[in-house]
Amino acid sequence: MEAGLPLPSSSLSQLILTQDDLKKIAAYKAVEYIESGMVLGLGTGSTAKHAVDRIGKLLRQGKLKDIVGIPTSNLDSHPVVDLAIDGADEVDPYLNLVKGRGGSLLREKMVEGACKKFVVIVDESKLVNYIGGSGLAMPVEVIQFCWKFTASRLQNLFQESGCVAKLRTLGEKAEPYVTDNGNYIIDLYFKQSIGDLKAASDSILQIAGVVEHGMFIDMATTVIVAGELGLIVKNK
Amino acid sequence: MEAGLPLPSSSLSQLILTQDDLKKIAAYKAVEYIESGMVLGLGTGSTAKHAVDRIGKLLRQGKLKDIVGIPTSNLDSHPVVDLAIDGADEVDPYLNLVKGRGGSLLREKMVEGACKKFVVIVDESKLVNYIGGSGLAMPVEVIQFCWKFTASRLQNLFQESGCVAKLRTLGEKAEPYVTDNGNYIIDLYFKQSIGDLKAASDSILQIAGVVEHGMFIDMATTVIVAGELGLIVKNK
Repeated sequence: MEAGLPLPSSSLSQLILTQDDLKKIAAYKAVEYIESGMVLGLGTGSTAKHAVDRIGKLLRQGKLKDIVGIPTSNLDSHPVVDLAIDGADEVDPYLNLVKGRGGSLLREKMVEGACKKFVVIVDESKLVNYIGGSGLAMPVEVIQFCWKFTASRLQNLFQESGCVAKLRTLGEKAEPYVTDNGNYIIDLYFKQSIGDLKAASDSILQIAGVVEHGMFIDMATTVIVAGELGLIVKNK
Repeated sequence: MEAGLPLPSSSLSQLILTQDDLKKIAAYKAVEYIESGMVLGLGTGSTAKHAVDRIGKLLRQGKLKDIVGIPTSNLDSHPVVDLAIDGADEVDPYLNLVKGRGGSLLREKMVEGACKKFVVIVDESKLVNYIGGSGLAMPVEVIQFCWKFTASRLQNLFQESGCVAKLRTLGEKAEPYVTDNGNYIIDLYFKQSIGDLKAASDSILQIAGVVEHGMFIDMATTVIVAGELGLIVKNK
Protein backbone atom coordinates (compact mmCIF):
# COMPACT_ATOMS: atom_id res chain seq x y z
CA MET A 1 0.00 0.00 0.00
CA GLU A 2 1.46 3.27 -1.08
CA ALA A 3 2.31 6.36 0.96
CA GLY A 4 0.14 9.38 0.28
CA LEU A 5 -2.94 7.41 -0.77
CA PRO A 6 -5.93 7.62 1.58
CA LEU A 7 -6.20 3.84 1.90
CA PRO A 8 -7.45 2.10 5.00
CA SER A 9 -4.52 0.73 7.01
CA SER A 10 -4.91 -1.85 9.76
CA SER A 11 -5.19 0.95 12.33
CA LEU A 12 -7.93 2.58 10.26
CA SER A 13 -9.89 -0.52 9.38
CA GLN A 14 -12.81 0.63 11.51
CA LEU A 15 -13.15 3.81 9.47
CA ILE A 16 -16.30 3.89 7.37
CA LEU A 17 -15.52 4.96 3.82
CA THR A 18 -18.09 6.79 1.77
CA GLN A 19 -18.77 6.02 -1.89
CA ASP A 20 -16.83 9.15 -2.75
CA ASP A 21 -13.85 8.03 -0.62
CA LEU A 22 -13.83 4.78 -2.55
CA LYS A 23 -13.89 6.62 -5.86
CA LYS A 24 -11.01 8.83 -4.75
CA ILE A 25 -8.94 5.85 -3.66
CA ALA A 26 -9.46 4.13 -6.99
CA ALA A 27 -8.76 7.33 -8.94
CA TYR A 28 -5.49 7.87 -7.10
CA LYS A 29 -4.46 4.33 -7.93
CA ALA A 30 -5.31 4.84 -11.60
CA VAL A 31 -3.13 7.95 -11.73
CA GLU A 32 -0.13 5.77 -10.86
CA TYR A 33 -0.36 4.45 -14.43
CA ILE A 34 0.41 7.89 -15.84
CA GLU A 35 3.95 8.73 -16.92
CA SER A 36 5.39 12.10 -17.90
CA GLY A 37 4.99 12.95 -21.59
CA MET A 38 1.79 10.94 -22.07
CA VAL A 39 -1.30 11.97 -24.03
CA LEU A 40 -4.27 11.24 -21.76
CA GLY A 41 -7.95 10.70 -22.41
CA LEU A 42 -10.02 11.63 -19.38
CA GLY A 43 -13.65 10.91 -18.70
CA THR A 44 -16.18 13.34 -17.35
CA GLY A 45 -17.77 11.55 -14.38
CA SER A 46 -17.23 11.98 -10.66
CA THR A 47 -14.47 9.37 -10.51
CA ALA A 48 -12.58 10.93 -13.39
CA LYS A 49 -12.76 14.25 -11.57
CA HIS A 50 -10.75 12.79 -8.69
CA ALA A 51 -8.16 11.59 -11.19
CA VAL A 52 -7.93 15.06 -12.74
CA ASP A 53 -7.47 16.63 -9.29
CA ARG A 54 -4.73 14.17 -8.47
CA ILE A 55 -2.95 14.74 -11.81
CA GLY A 56 -3.09 18.49 -11.19
CA LYS A 57 -1.44 18.02 -7.81
CA LEU A 58 1.32 15.82 -9.23
CA LEU A 59 1.97 18.35 -12.01
CA ARG A 60 2.25 21.17 -9.45
CA GLN A 61 4.63 19.06 -7.40
CA GLY A 62 6.75 18.38 -10.50
CA LYS A 63 6.20 14.62 -10.18
CA LEU A 64 4.57 14.55 -13.62
CA LYS A 65 5.29 16.79 -16.59
CA ASP A 66 4.46 17.26 -20.28
CA ILE A 67 1.00 15.74 -19.95
CA VAL A 68 -1.53 16.43 -22.73
CA GLY A 69 -5.06 15.82 -21.49
CA ILE A 70 -7.86 15.40 -24.01
CA PRO A 71 -11.23 15.36 -22.23
CA THR A 72 -12.92 13.21 -24.89
CA SER A 73 -12.53 16.17 -27.22
CA ASN A 74 -10.08 16.12 -30.06
CA LEU A 75 -8.75 12.93 -31.54
CA ASP A 76 -8.07 14.73 -34.81
CA SER A 77 -5.14 16.59 -33.22
CA HIS A 78 -3.94 13.65 -31.12
CA PRO A 79 -4.89 10.43 -32.89
CA VAL A 80 -2.70 8.35 -30.55
CA VAL A 81 -3.71 8.46 -26.89
CA ASP A 82 -1.37 6.75 -24.44
CA LEU A 83 -3.76 6.21 -21.58
CA ALA A 84 -7.41 6.85 -20.80
CA ILE A 85 -8.92 6.85 -17.32
CA ASP A 86 -12.66 6.68 -16.88
CA GLY A 87 -15.47 5.18 -14.85
CA ALA A 88 -18.01 2.57 -15.97
CA ASP A 89 -21.59 1.57 -15.16
CA GLU A 90 -20.97 -2.18 -15.16
CA VAL A 91 -17.88 -4.42 -15.30
CA ASP A 92 -18.21 -8.13 -16.05
CA PRO A 93 -15.66 -10.81 -15.00
CA TYR A 94 -13.85 -10.48 -18.37
CA LEU A 95 -13.48 -6.68 -17.96
CA ASN A 96 -16.17 -5.94 -20.52
CA LEU A 97 -18.03 -2.75 -19.60
CA VAL A 98 -21.33 -0.95 -19.91
CA LYS A 99 -21.00 2.81 -20.21
CA GLY A 100 -23.27 5.65 -21.21
CA ARG A 101 -25.97 5.58 -18.53
CA GLY A 102 -25.05 9.22 -18.09
CA GLY A 103 -25.76 9.75 -21.80
CA SER A 104 -22.23 9.94 -23.14
CA LEU A 105 -20.98 6.80 -24.82
CA LEU A 106 -20.04 7.47 -28.41
CA ARG A 107 -17.32 10.08 -28.00
CA GLU A 108 -15.85 8.21 -25.06
CA LYS A 109 -15.81 4.99 -27.05
CA MET A 110 -13.97 6.75 -29.86
CA VAL A 111 -11.33 8.15 -27.51
CA GLU A 112 -10.99 5.04 -25.38
CA GLY A 113 -10.88 2.84 -28.45
CA ALA A 114 -7.91 4.89 -29.66
CA CYS A 115 -5.91 4.34 -26.44
CA LYS A 116 -2.94 2.10 -25.87
CA LYS A 117 -4.07 1.59 -22.26
CA PHE A 118 -7.53 2.10 -20.79
CA VAL A 119 -7.75 2.12 -16.99
CA VAL A 120 -11.26 1.88 -15.60
CA ILE A 121 -12.15 2.99 -12.08
CA VAL A 122 -15.22 1.65 -10.31
CA ASP A 123 -16.52 0.93 -6.86
CA GLU A 124 -17.49 -2.65 -6.16
CA SER A 125 -21.21 -2.03 -6.70
CA LYS A 126 -20.46 -1.92 -10.46
CA LEU A 127 -19.25 -5.53 -10.66
CA VAL A 128 -21.75 -7.84 -12.41
CA ASN A 129 -21.78 -11.49 -13.39
CA TYR A 130 -22.87 -10.60 -16.92
CA ILE A 131 -23.49 -7.44 -18.96
CA GLY A 132 -26.92 -6.13 -17.98
CA GLY A 133 -26.75 -8.11 -14.73
CA SER A 134 -27.33 -5.04 -12.57
CA GLY A 135 -30.85 -4.79 -13.99
CA LEU A 136 -29.97 -1.29 -15.17
CA ALA A 137 -29.87 -0.05 -18.75
CA MET A 138 -27.51 -0.88 -21.59
CA PRO A 139 -27.85 2.24 -23.74
CA VAL A 140 -27.94 2.23 -27.54
CA GLU A 141 -27.54 5.49 -29.47
CA VAL A 142 -29.88 5.59 -32.49
CA ILE A 143 -30.80 8.15 -35.12
CA GLN A 144 -34.07 9.97 -34.47
CA PHE A 145 -35.63 8.85 -37.77
CA CYS A 146 -38.03 5.95 -37.11
CA TRP A 147 -36.62 5.34 -33.62
CA LYS A 148 -39.67 3.24 -32.66
CA PHE A 149 -38.89 0.84 -35.46
CA THR A 150 -35.25 0.61 -34.37
CA ALA A 151 -36.29 0.11 -30.73
CA SER A 152 -38.59 -2.71 -31.76
CA ARG A 153 -35.83 -4.39 -33.77
CA LEU A 154 -33.48 -4.12 -30.78
CA GLN A 155 -36.02 -5.62 -28.41
CA ASN A 156 -36.71 -8.49 -30.83
CA LEU A 157 -32.99 -9.18 -31.21
CA PHE A 158 -32.73 -10.07 -27.51
CA GLN A 159 -36.19 -11.53 -27.04
CA GLU A 160 -34.72 -14.70 -25.52
CA SER A 161 -33.02 -12.64 -22.82
CA GLY A 162 -36.33 -10.98 -21.89
CA CYS A 163 -35.21 -7.68 -23.35
CA VAL A 164 -37.27 -4.52 -22.87
CA ALA A 165 -36.35 -1.46 -24.96
CA LYS A 166 -37.27 2.04 -23.74
CA LEU A 167 -36.67 5.47 -25.21
CA ARG A 168 -34.68 7.57 -22.73
CA THR A 169 -36.63 10.69 -21.76
CA LEU A 170 -36.00 13.75 -19.65
CA GLY A 171 -38.09 15.76 -17.20
CA GLU A 172 -41.79 15.81 -16.43
CA LYS A 173 -42.80 16.19 -20.05
CA ALA A 174 -40.81 13.06 -20.89
CA GLU A 175 -39.12 14.72 -23.86
CA PRO A 176 -36.67 12.42 -25.63
CA TYR A 177 -33.11 12.76 -24.36
CA VAL A 178 -30.86 14.03 -27.18
CA THR A 179 -27.15 13.12 -27.23
CA ASP A 180 -24.30 15.48 -28.05
CA ASN A 181 -24.47 14.04 -31.59
CA GLY A 182 -28.17 14.85 -31.98
CA ASN A 183 -29.36 11.26 -31.56
CA TYR A 184 -31.73 9.43 -29.21
CA ILE A 185 -30.90 6.75 -26.63
CA ILE A 186 -32.78 3.44 -26.46
CA ASP A 187 -32.15 1.82 -23.08
CA LEU A 188 -32.14 -1.99 -23.18
CA TYR A 189 -32.98 -3.97 -20.04
CA PHE A 190 -32.12 -7.67 -19.94
CA LYS A 191 -33.57 -10.34 -17.65
CA GLN A 192 -30.82 -12.81 -18.56
CA SER A 193 -27.36 -12.81 -20.10
CA ILE A 194 -27.29 -12.05 -23.82
CA GLY A 195 -24.49 -14.60 -24.35
CA ASP A 196 -21.62 -13.93 -26.76
CA LEU A 197 -21.05 -10.18 -26.52
CA LYS A 198 -19.13 -9.79 -29.78
CA ALA A 199 -21.93 -11.50 -31.68
CA ALA A 200 -24.47 -9.32 -29.85
CA SER A 201 -22.46 -6.22 -30.69
CA ASP A 202 -22.32 -7.06 -34.41
CA SER A 203 -26.06 -7.80 -34.46
CA ILE A 204 -26.83 -4.45 -32.83
CA LEU A 205 -24.55 -2.51 -35.16
CA GLN A 206 -26.05 -4.23 -38.22
CA ILE A 207 -29.40 -2.56 -37.50
CA ALA A 208 -29.39 0.42 -39.84
CA GLY A 209 -30.74 2.99 -37.36
CA VAL A 210 -28.14 2.19 -34.70
CA VAL A 211 -25.20 4.55 -34.28
CA GLU A 212 -23.40 2.88 -31.36
CA HIS A 213 -24.03 0.90 -28.16
CA GLY A 214 -22.76 1.16 -24.62
CA MET A 215 -20.93 -2.17 -24.41
CA PHE A 216 -17.18 -1.63 -24.32
CA ILE A 217 -15.96 -5.11 -25.23
CA ASP A 218 -12.34 -6.06 -24.82
CA MET A 219 -11.31 -2.42 -24.41
CA ALA A 220 -10.34 -2.02 -20.74
CA THR A 221 -6.75 -3.05 -20.05
CA THR A 222 -7.01 -2.51 -16.27
CA VAL A 223 -9.96 -2.21 -13.92
CA ILE A 224 -9.41 -0.79 -10.44
CA VAL A 225 -12.17 -1.77 -8.05
CA ALA A 226 -12.49 0.12 -4.77
CA GLY A 227 -14.26 -1.71 -1.98
CA GLU A 228 -14.46 -1.28 1.76
CA LEU A 229 -11.65 -3.77 2.20
CA GLY A 230 -9.31 -1.95 -0.18
CA LEU A 231 -8.46 -1.97 -3.85
CA ILE A 232 -8.53 -4.83 -6.32
CA VAL A 233 -6.59 -4.31 -9.54
CA LYS A 234 -7.65 -6.53 -12.43
CA ASN A 235 -5.46 -6.65 -15.52
CA LYS A 236 -6.39 -7.99 -18.94
CA MET B 1 -43.09 -8.61 -73.59
CA GLU B 2 -46.06 -6.77 -72.30
CA ALA B 3 -48.45 -4.49 -74.13
CA GLY B 4 -48.21 -0.85 -73.19
CA LEU B 5 -44.54 -0.97 -72.22
CA PRO B 6 -42.15 1.09 -74.32
CA LEU B 7 -39.84 -1.88 -74.99
CA PRO B 8 -37.86 -2.27 -78.18
CA SER B 9 -39.47 -4.88 -80.40
CA SER B 10 -37.78 -6.44 -83.42
CA SER B 11 -39.22 -3.75 -85.65
CA LEU B 12 -37.88 -1.09 -83.33
CA SER B 13 -34.42 -2.55 -82.79
CA GLN B 14 -32.80 0.31 -84.66
CA LEU B 15 -34.29 2.82 -82.24
CA ILE B 16 -31.69 4.52 -80.09
CA LEU B 17 -32.80 4.57 -76.48
CA THR B 18 -31.68 7.30 -74.15
CA GLN B 19 -30.53 6.66 -70.57
CA ASP B 20 -33.90 7.96 -69.43
CA ASP B 21 -35.78 5.61 -71.76
CA LEU B 22 -33.85 2.71 -70.23
CA LYS B 23 -34.74 3.87 -66.73
CA LYS B 24 -38.39 4.15 -67.66
CA ILE B 25 -38.43 0.66 -69.17
CA ALA B 26 -36.90 -0.83 -66.04
CA ALA B 27 -39.22 1.14 -63.76
CA TYR B 28 -42.31 -0.10 -65.65
CA LYS B 29 -41.07 -3.66 -65.28
CA ALA B 30 -40.53 -3.18 -61.54
CA VAL B 31 -44.08 -1.92 -61.13
CA GLU B 32 -45.31 -5.32 -62.35
CA TYR B 33 -44.23 -6.66 -58.93
CA ILE B 34 -46.79 -4.47 -57.18
CA GLU B 35 -50.13 -5.97 -56.13
CA SER B 36 -53.22 -4.18 -54.81
CA GLY B 37 -53.22 -3.68 -51.03
CA MET B 38 -49.43 -3.51 -50.68
CA VAL B 39 -47.43 -1.11 -48.50
CA LEU B 40 -44.67 0.25 -50.72
CA GLY B 41 -41.30 1.85 -50.02
CA LEU B 42 -40.27 4.13 -52.84
CA GLY B 43 -36.90 5.73 -53.45
CA THR B 44 -36.26 9.30 -54.41
CA GLY B 45 -34.05 9.09 -57.51
CA SER B 46 -34.90 9.57 -61.18
CA THR B 47 -35.67 5.88 -61.75
CA ALA B 48 -38.01 5.72 -58.78
CA LYS B 49 -39.84 8.73 -60.18
CA HIS B 50 -40.75 6.74 -63.28
CA ALA B 51 -42.10 3.99 -61.02
CA VAL B 52 -44.22 6.49 -59.11
CA ASP B 53 -45.63 7.90 -62.35
CA ARG B 54 -46.50 4.42 -63.55
CA ILE B 55 -48.16 3.47 -60.24
CA GLY B 56 -50.22 6.66 -60.43
CA LYS B 57 -51.42 5.73 -63.88
CA LEU B 58 -52.37 2.17 -62.83
CA LEU B 59 -54.24 3.55 -59.80
CA ARG B 60 -56.19 5.96 -62.00
CA GLN B 61 -57.00 3.11 -64.38
CA GLY B 62 -58.20 1.00 -61.44
CA LYS B 63 -55.63 -1.71 -62.20
CA LEU B 64 -54.12 -1.21 -58.74
CA LYS B 65 -55.88 -0.16 -55.55
CA ASP B 66 -55.32 0.29 -51.80
CA ILE B 67 -51.65 1.06 -52.19
CA VAL B 68 -49.86 2.76 -49.27
CA GLY B 69 -46.68 4.43 -50.43
CA ILE B 70 -44.05 5.42 -47.88
CA PRO B 71 -41.35 7.53 -49.55
CA THR B 72 -38.62 6.46 -47.09
CA SER B 73 -40.52 8.36 -44.45
CA ASN B 74 -42.41 6.61 -41.72
CA LEU B 75 -41.60 3.10 -40.68
CA ASP B 76 -43.05 3.77 -37.24
CA SER B 77 -46.58 3.77 -38.70
CA HIS B 78 -45.95 0.94 -41.20
CA PRO B 79 -43.26 -1.33 -39.77
CA VAL B 80 -43.95 -3.98 -42.41
CA VAL B 81 -43.34 -2.90 -45.99
CA ASP B 82 -44.35 -5.36 -48.71
CA LEU B 83 -42.20 -4.09 -51.52
CA ALA B 84 -39.60 -1.39 -52.10
CA ILE B 85 -38.49 -0.13 -55.50
CA ASP B 86 -35.35 1.95 -55.83
CA GLY B 87 -32.25 2.56 -57.92
CA ALA B 88 -28.63 1.78 -57.02
CA ASP B 89 -25.16 3.12 -57.82
CA GLU B 90 -23.52 -0.28 -58.25
CA VAL B 91 -24.76 -3.88 -58.49
CA ASP B 92 -22.33 -6.80 -58.17
CA PRO B 93 -22.92 -10.32 -59.60
CA TYR B 94 -24.47 -11.46 -56.28
CA LEU B 95 -26.97 -8.55 -56.26
CA ASN B 96 -25.11 -6.68 -53.53
CA LEU B 97 -25.43 -2.93 -54.02
CA VAL B 98 -23.76 0.38 -53.39
CA LYS B 99 -26.17 3.20 -52.69
CA GLY B 100 -25.89 6.69 -51.25
CA ARG B 101 -23.76 8.50 -53.82
CA GLY B 102 -26.59 11.00 -53.89
CA GLY B 103 -26.18 11.39 -50.12
CA SER B 104 -29.14 9.37 -48.90
CA LEU B 105 -28.31 5.91 -47.64
CA LEU B 106 -29.32 5.50 -44.01
CA ARG B 107 -33.06 6.12 -44.24
CA GLU B 108 -33.29 4.08 -47.42
CA LYS B 109 -31.39 1.23 -45.80
CA MET B 110 -33.84 1.29 -42.89
CA VAL B 111 -36.88 1.17 -45.15
CA GLU B 112 -35.46 -1.30 -47.64
CA GLY B 113 -34.17 -3.50 -44.82
CA ALA B 114 -37.74 -3.67 -43.52
CA CYS B 115 -39.17 -4.90 -46.84
CA LYS B 116 -40.33 -8.35 -47.77
CA LYS B 117 -39.24 -7.73 -51.38
CA PHE B 118 -36.76 -5.16 -52.64
CA VAL B 119 -36.73 -4.60 -56.40
CA VAL B 120 -33.77 -2.61 -57.72
CA ILE B 121 -33.82 -0.82 -61.05
CA VAL B 122 -30.60 0.07 -62.85
CA ASP B 123 -29.25 0.64 -66.32
CA GLU B 124 -26.42 -1.64 -67.37
CA SER B 125 -23.71 0.93 -66.62
CA LYS B 126 -24.24 0.16 -62.92
CA LEU B 127 -23.17 -3.48 -63.17
CA VAL B 128 -19.74 -4.11 -61.61
CA ASN B 129 -17.57 -7.17 -61.05
CA TYR B 130 -17.06 -6.23 -57.42
CA ILE B 131 -18.29 -3.53 -55.01
CA GLY B 132 -16.26 -0.39 -55.70
CA GLY B 133 -15.39 -1.73 -59.14
CA SER B 134 -16.75 1.33 -60.95
CA GLY B 135 -13.98 3.40 -59.37
CA LEU B 136 -16.65 5.60 -57.84
CA ALA B 137 -17.33 6.16 -54.15
CA MET B 138 -18.69 3.80 -51.52
CA PRO B 139 -20.12 6.30 -49.01
CA VAL B 140 -19.91 5.89 -45.23
CA GLU B 141 -22.03 8.09 -42.96
CA VAL B 142 -20.07 9.17 -39.86
CA ILE B 143 -20.70 11.47 -36.92
CA GLN B 144 -19.08 14.90 -37.25
CA PHE B 145 -17.05 14.52 -34.05
CA CYS B 146 -13.42 13.64 -34.95
CA TRP B 147 -14.35 12.70 -38.52
CA LYS B 148 -10.69 12.85 -39.60
CA PHE B 149 -9.86 10.16 -37.13
CA THR B 150 -12.74 8.01 -38.38
CA ALA B 151 -11.72 8.61 -42.02
CA SER B 152 -8.19 7.52 -41.23
CA ARG B 153 -9.41 4.34 -39.52
CA LEU B 154 -11.61 3.56 -42.54
CA GLN B 155 -8.75 4.06 -44.96
CA ASN B 156 -6.45 1.86 -42.87
CA LEU B 157 -9.07 -0.86 -42.70
CA PHE B 158 -8.92 -1.32 -46.49
CA GLN B 159 -5.25 -0.47 -46.99
CA GLU B 160 -4.70 -3.72 -48.92
CA SER B 161 -7.38 -2.71 -51.43
CA GLY B 162 -5.63 0.63 -52.03
CA CYS B 163 -8.41 2.50 -50.26
CA VAL B 164 -8.55 6.30 -50.30
CA ALA B 165 -10.99 8.03 -47.91
CA LYS B 166 -12.30 11.53 -48.67
CA LEU B 167 -14.72 13.80 -46.85
CA ARG B 168 -17.63 14.64 -49.14
CA THR B 169 -17.86 18.39 -49.68
CA LEU B 170 -20.22 20.77 -51.45
CA GLY B 171 -19.73 23.85 -53.57
CA GLU B 172 -16.76 26.09 -54.21
CA LYS B 173 -16.02 26.59 -50.54
CA ALA B 174 -15.83 22.82 -50.13
CA GLU B 175 -18.04 22.86 -47.04
CA PRO B 176 -18.69 19.38 -45.63
CA TYR B 177 -21.85 17.77 -46.98
CA VAL B 178 -24.31 17.19 -44.11
CA THR B 179 -26.80 14.31 -44.32
CA ASP B 180 -30.45 14.49 -43.32
CA ASN B 181 -29.37 13.02 -39.98
CA GLY B 182 -26.79 15.75 -39.35
CA ASN B 183 -23.78 13.57 -40.15
CA TYR B 184 -20.87 13.72 -42.61
CA ILE B 185 -20.11 11.35 -45.50
CA ILE B 186 -16.68 9.78 -45.99
CA ASP B 187 -16.37 8.48 -49.55
CA LEU B 188 -14.19 5.38 -49.89
CA TYR B 189 -12.49 4.60 -53.20
CA PHE B 190 -11.06 1.12 -53.75
CA LYS B 191 -8.42 0.04 -56.27
CA GLN B 192 -9.23 -3.66 -55.75
CA SER B 193 -12.00 -5.79 -54.34
CA ILE B 194 -12.35 -5.64 -50.56
CA GLY B 195 -13.17 -9.37 -50.44
CA ASP B 196 -15.80 -10.74 -48.04
CA LEU B 197 -18.44 -8.02 -47.90
CA LYS B 198 -20.10 -9.17 -44.68
CA ALA B 199 -16.77 -9.15 -42.88
CA ALA B 200 -16.01 -5.73 -44.37
CA SER B 201 -19.41 -4.46 -43.24
CA ASP B 202 -18.91 -5.62 -39.66
CA SER B 203 -15.42 -4.08 -39.55
CA ILE B 204 -16.76 -0.75 -40.77
CA LEU B 205 -19.68 -0.75 -38.32
CA GLN B 206 -17.36 -1.64 -35.43
CA ILE B 207 -15.60 1.72 -35.83
CA ALA B 208 -17.23 3.87 -33.17
CA GLY B 209 -17.69 7.02 -35.27
CA VAL B 210 -19.46 5.17 -38.12
CA VAL B 211 -23.24 5.43 -38.38
CA GLU B 212 -23.85 3.38 -41.53
CA HIS B 213 -22.31 2.50 -44.90
CA GLY B 214 -23.61 2.39 -48.45
CA MET B 215 -23.21 -1.35 -49.08
CA PHE B 216 -26.61 -3.05 -49.24
CA ILE B 217 -25.56 -6.65 -48.77
CA ASP B 218 -28.00 -9.47 -49.41
CA MET B 219 -30.94 -7.07 -49.45
CA ALA B 220 -32.09 -6.88 -53.07
CA THR B 221 -34.46 -9.69 -54.01
CA THR B 222 -34.71 -8.69 -57.69
CA VAL B 223 -32.56 -6.48 -59.89
CA ILE B 224 -33.95 -5.25 -63.20
CA VAL B 225 -31.22 -4.19 -65.59
CA ALA B 226 -32.15 -2.10 -68.60
CA GLY B 227 -29.76 -2.25 -71.52
CA GLU B 228 -29.96 -1.37 -75.18
CA LEU B 229 -30.87 -4.94 -76.00
CA GLY B 230 -33.74 -5.07 -73.51
CA LEU B 231 -34.30 -5.99 -69.91
CA ILE B 232 -32.50 -8.56 -67.79
CA VAL B 233 -34.28 -9.60 -64.59
CA LYS B 234 -32.03 -11.14 -61.94
CA ASN B 235 -33.61 -12.83 -58.95
CA LYS B 236 -31.95 -13.76 -55.70
